[in-house]
This record gives sequence, structure tokens and C-alpha cells, in this order.
Amino acid sequence: MAILSVNCGSSSLKYQLYDWDAQKALASGLIDRIGLKDSNIVHKYAGQKIERKDNCADHQTAFHLVLDFLLKEAKLISSLADIEGVGHRIVHGGVNFSASALIDDAALAEIKANKDLAPLHTPPNVVGIESAREVMPDTPQVAIFDTAFHQTMPEYAYAYALNYELAQKYKIRKYGFHGSSHRYVSERAAALLDNRPGWKAIIVHVGNGSSLSAVRDGKCLDTSMGLTPLAGVIMGTRAGDIDPAIVQFLVHKTGETVEQIMSRLNKESGMLGVSGFSDQRDILAGAARGDTRCQLALQMQAYSVKKYIGAYLAALNGADALIFTAGIGENSPDFRQAVCENMSALGLELDVAKNQERSGAERLISAPDSQIKIFVVPTNEEFIIARDVIELVRGKN
Amino acid sequence: MAILSVNCGSSSLKYQLYDWDAQKALASGLIDRIGLKDSNIVHKYAGQKIERKDNCADHQTAFHLVLDFLLKEAKLISSLADIEGVGHRIVHGGVNFSASALIDDAALAEIKANKDLAPLHTPPNVVGIESAREVMPDTPQVAIFDTAFHQTMPEYAYAYALNYELAQKYKIRKYGFHGSSHRYVSERAAALLDNRPGWKAIIVHVGNGSSLSAVRDGKCLDTSMGLTPLAGVIMGTRAGDIDPAIVQFLVHKTGETVEQIMSRLNKESGMLGVSGFSDQRDILAGAARGDTRCQLALQMQAYSVKKYIGAYLAALNGADALIFTAGIGENSPDFRQAVCENMSALGLELDVAKNQERSGAERLISAPDSQIKIFVVPTNEEFIIARDVIELVRGKN
Repeated sequence: MAILSVNCGSSSLKYQLYDWDAQKALASGLIDRIGLKDSNIVHKYAGQKIERKDNCADHQTAFHLVLDFLLKEAKLISSLADIEGVGHRIVHGGVNFSASALIDDAALAEIKANKDLAPLHTPPNVVGIESAREVMPDTPQVAIFDTAFHQTMPEYAYAYALNYELAQKYKIRKYGFHGSSHRYVSERAAALLDNRPGWKAIIVHVGNGSSLSAVRDGKCLDTSMGLTPLAGVIMGTRAGDIDPAIVQFLVHKTGETVEQIMSRLNKESGMLGVSGFSDQRDILAGAARGDTRCQLALQMQAYSVKKYIGAYLAALNGADALIFTAGIGENSPDFRQAVCENMSALGLELDVAKNQERSGAERLISAPDSQIKIFVVPTNEEFIIARDVIELVRGKN
Repeated sequence: MAILSVNCGSSSLKYQLYDWDAQKALASGLIDRIGLKDSNIVHKYAGQKIERKDNCADHQTAFHLVLDFLLKEAKLISSLADIEGVGHRIVHGGVNFSASALIDDAALAEIKANKDLAPLHTPPNVVGIESAREVMPDTPQVAIFDTAFHQTMPEYAYAYALNYELAQKYKIRKYGFHGSSHRYVSERAAALLDNRPGWKAIIVHVGNGSSLSAVRDGKCLDTSMGLTPLAGVIMGTRAGDIDPAIVQFLVHKTGETVEQIMSRLNKESGMLGVSGFSDQRDILAGAARGDTRCQLALQMQAYSVKKYIGAYLAALNGADALIFTAGIGENSPDFRQAVCENMSALGLELDVAKNQERSGAERLISAPDSQIKIFVVPTNEEFIIARDVIELVRGKN
């Protein structure tokens, strides 16, 4: 049976068709510029990439385009009944979703009620759900929340030291994101550590967005993103942790609104802000040719991750494993080396040669005498989404 | 010879008269509500505390009141010539002051030029300098900056991942504060560690305001406060590090201005915000009688310090000493125990009995087999100020 997973942005729909029995993706794609002229459509399947332009007026139309492609063109399904469920990636689950959930009217209402916690992401997520329900009324819909995995954090870790009544009233707390990735890697950590009771791991998810989590026995105890994905380590275009007074300072200095400053902090800061480039490869190349801003950006990135690793070693009182995942975590030996350098006092020793080996596989990259094992684990959010859909759909029947 | 050190707020003047030869304070005091009716005046000397009300129209009048008291009432000096120099505590030295400085017209202009970096503190600091120059035109004036000690931080530690041009244009970077305290404790660390080359220490200054620093060979490599004193660990009334997006979120939710929200983050957050109390003793008492908000505040406080210690262990690749100082750091065994608990994997083992001993002295409180030594060092900013004044004044002649 197949699972369709979707991720709806304000003018985009990303999808993947996942074959649960074969445990692999059958097709994936992206419809972009929805509602504009000349929407971009990309499908990938069977080693091919098909790109075309079409008018796609809204998300319902986008779903029809995807389903038509899967049914009639790629012939990967013979009827909608072949799709056992649709998994929707939802950015914010607030405090009431600590796991994925079948989407009935109550769940949808609850997702909508969290809108203010992610005002840019929730409305298109909801449009995606509503469109899918109309286009595929007989197919179960499941919500997979970026925040759910982190709901096990203790209060002292997720609470902010704000005026208590304000924080309670507006549900201002640390939520954390990238939950499906941290959950997948946490499951792999358990396996790599032989499910030893009390195992502890620090997961370093560094891609365009980046977050770390501190995990014990499969439970998240802390994570670096906050109320929103702006907080934590330095990211591709996001500033990460800064003195919050900088928001007011910039409002005063520039004369811009607080919204404009937040947009700057999310979209033109981070590695892009420091180096002028947002792609890690460009920054590495720049640093290699002596560009001091690229060199600084790489130093700052590694240092910010390094400090979170130290903080989580303190939070966990040591760890059994440090695990790198996601785009940069999986694919940049330079990044991993910069992070692990000069961390021997904390029990981290990289095997420099193993770290340099290119591979798409799960692998150990620490030196034999490293007290903490260092792994690279390719993340697999699609697997988590498909499995949650399967479990919820089959559990229901 | 005596040194007069002063700390001018918008409506206050704190002073101390320090006897350099005897290495002790002769008198100290506070004039509060300057410019309002019924200014409060407190002098302490020779074991006495004198409190009175008087009209004090401005900072010049306040200086006259202090000098009159020292000359005529307490008779601690026989003429103004007995005061070798005046040391002014200045909150923000920007990027051009990496040490204390004799205040000539150029230095004063530079202090004024940094006004925007500390708009609440610099103007009264400047008023204090100008008043002292008028009242004591023949006495050298020295500026001691809260930021100076931290000017040795490397760029990757002090830079924020913001749009580069904006950060450069407005000098937005981490400055750090409490510099005189960190400097004093760092000098004591050197002595306690026998000046071993490459010695490393983490200094935990926790009082009403709180900051940590990572120090190697007497040089500050990182510190927890930022552009302003709002950033870092949870403090008495300041939130410390939070997702900067919370500023915008609160502006939207409450309808308040960004200034009002910043005031909330500085004045009604932190331990006060979580527990309802700002005094650590009240919070400890509350926690003891089962108040869950007080218990939460203490857990959050210890956890936030614990994570910074871990981060700085990563930054320094281990440390020789962890040093507690300032009001809570020196006087709360409960706080120190909560911070050091479950940190054995990082080489920290408290001697629980030694930690409980009350003393005003410098002391070792770690267990004999603790890899990292843990000390309590009573801070002494007055000594640093007096010594800088003496060195600059005598060096000049």
C-alpha cells in the first residue's frame, strides 16, 4: 500500500508517494507558485525528473494535478483506493499534540486554534488538509507535527523566564521543531546503542534550518529551537540565539517595523548574513579562497553548535553518542570536523579519516578511544510520516 | 591616599571611599531620588549607618553632599586633595575601550558617542562625570567600563549572525558586562591555579544581574551577556536568552509597544516573572513551603547556568576551575548545589559539606577527586576600580 505525504506552504505543495511494503519512495515532487501564472511543476519518479509549467489556481487543483500524474501518467497507483492515507506535515501542534493524529473535525479545529503560534505556516497547512479532504474524501488524513517529539521536555527546559501570567495566557514556551527528523534519528540512536537503558544522545540536525536535541531513552529533554524556528544555533538565513534587545535596537536604528526586523532575522541573517552566501558549498569555497566573511561564518556556525553540544552534555550529564544528520550534518566533513575539534576534554574524538569518507550510509566516525561515539545518520522524515500514517490508519480499523 | 568611586544612575549616586594603602573601604553610601523632593541619603562608615532626607536637586548637589559628609561630618578626609582620583563606573565602553581610561575631553566625547549602545545608563554616567569635573576640577577622573574586560573575545564569539552591514554600521555585537567583577575573579583564579600557563576557568557571577565568562590565561573568550545585559542566564528580573521572536509575538498579543515589551523582559521577567519574587531568599523560602512556581524558578535558574557551564567547557575544551561569585553565587549553597548536581560526567564534583559552610572567604568547595576545582571567590569590584584609578593617576604623573 502507498502513503502520500504532503507539505503545503502558502503557494506550494511538496509531495512524496511512499511504498510502505517496499519501504521506499515511489515518486516525489513539488508544485510551486500556486495561484500565480505559470506554476512550476516537478515530478521525480523511476529515475526521471519531469518539469513543466501549468496553471494551478489553488491547492485543490494542485492535489488533482498530483493525483492525475500518479494515476494516469506515472501509473504508480491504479485508483485512489491504493493510497491508504495522506500524511500532512504540520509545523505547529501547540501543547495538545504530542504525537501524530488522525485528522477529524476536532483535530482540525485544534490545529486551527494553534494558528497564532505559527501564523505563516498554519494557514497553508490547513488549506492543504481541507483541499485533500475534498479531493480524497474517502482517504484517511493524518497530521504529523514538527513539534510533537519535543513535547516530552520537562517544564524547566521548555519554560521561558517571562511574566508567568503572560506566558500561560499566550502559551509562550519552547516547542522545538524538526520533530520527525529528531525522532527518526533518536530511534536509530537507540538501535546503534543496543537499546541500553538510560542511553543518552545529542542529535545535531544541521541543514538549511538547524536544531539540536538532547535525548535520553528516546525522550527529548531539550531542543534548541524555541517558540518559533528562529532560536538556537546559527542557520542558513536565521540568526539563531541573539540578545532579544537587538530587536528593539534595530527597530530604533533602522526605523523599520518589528515585522520587518523579524523578517530580516529570519531571512537575511545566519550564514547568509555573515558571509553573503546561504549555500554551505559556496561558503566553503569562499573560505578556501580566503574570503574572511566566509571563514568567519564557518567559525561562528561550528562554535554555535559546539556550545549547544556542551550545554546538552551538561543537561544530560554526559552522553553515549553525538549524531550528525540532515544536509550539512550528513554531507559536510569540514563542518563536522570544525564542531568536534578541541572537544577531547568532553570525551569527543573524531576519526579524521573516517569523517572524510563520503557515504550515504549510517556510519561511526569517532576514534576508537572516543568516550562518546560520533555517528552520521541520514535522516528519514518520510519514513516516520509513512509509518505514523500506517499505524494510525490501521489502528483505527 | 583615598579613591572615591561613584556609580551614577538617572536619579541616584552610589559612592565608596577606598583607602588604597589600607586596602579597605572607609565609607560608602547612596543618594537616591535625586531631582525629586525628599531625596534619600544613606552613608555607612565606621560601623554606623546614617539615613536622612534632604533636597538634592541634581548630581552636582549630590557630589557636594557626599564631599561635605566626608570632609566635615565623618572627617575621613581633610581636604579634597586627599582624594587622589575619582573612579566612575561606566556601563558601556563600546569597542574603543578595552581598559579603564583617564577622562579627558576626548575620552568623554567617546563615552558620549557610545550613548546609543546603553541609552538608559550612559546619560546619567555622563552627568556623573561632568558633575564631578565641576565640583572637583583638580582631581583626576577615571572611567572604569563594565564592558572592558570582555574586549578580548575573538570575533567568532562576539559576532552575531546578523546582516553583516547592519551589524557593522550599528556596532551590534556581544559586549558583555560585569567586567570589573569578572576581571577581579579572573585574577584570583590565576592565583588559585598557581598561574599555570594556559589555565582555564569558568566564572559564574550570579547576583541580581548575572553573567558567566569563559577565561583562559586571564583573557575573556566568551561571556553570556550580549549587546545589552538582557541576554544570557535567567536573572532576578531579566529573562535572559529567549527566542527573539517572542518580542514580536508579545507586541502582537498585548498591543504594547516594543519599548513596553523590552521593559517587561528587563524588569518583570526572570526569577520574578516565574516565581513572583525577585529576592532569592524569598524564592528559596517559597520553594521550601511547596510553592511550585518558586520551585520551577529555582530549577530553571540552575538549569540555565548549568547549560552555560557546559557550553563554556566546550568553548574552552575543559577547564581547571569553576568559580562562583556575587550575591547568590557567594551566599547560596542551594544554588551552587543545584548547578553542580549531576555534572560528574563533565568533571564536576561538589563537596556537599564544604559547600554548605558559611564564610566570607575565598574557598574550595569541590570534592578531592573533582577533575575541575570548584571555588567560591567573593568579588571585589571596588578594589579593581581603586587600583585602576591609582595606576592611571600615578602613571600619568
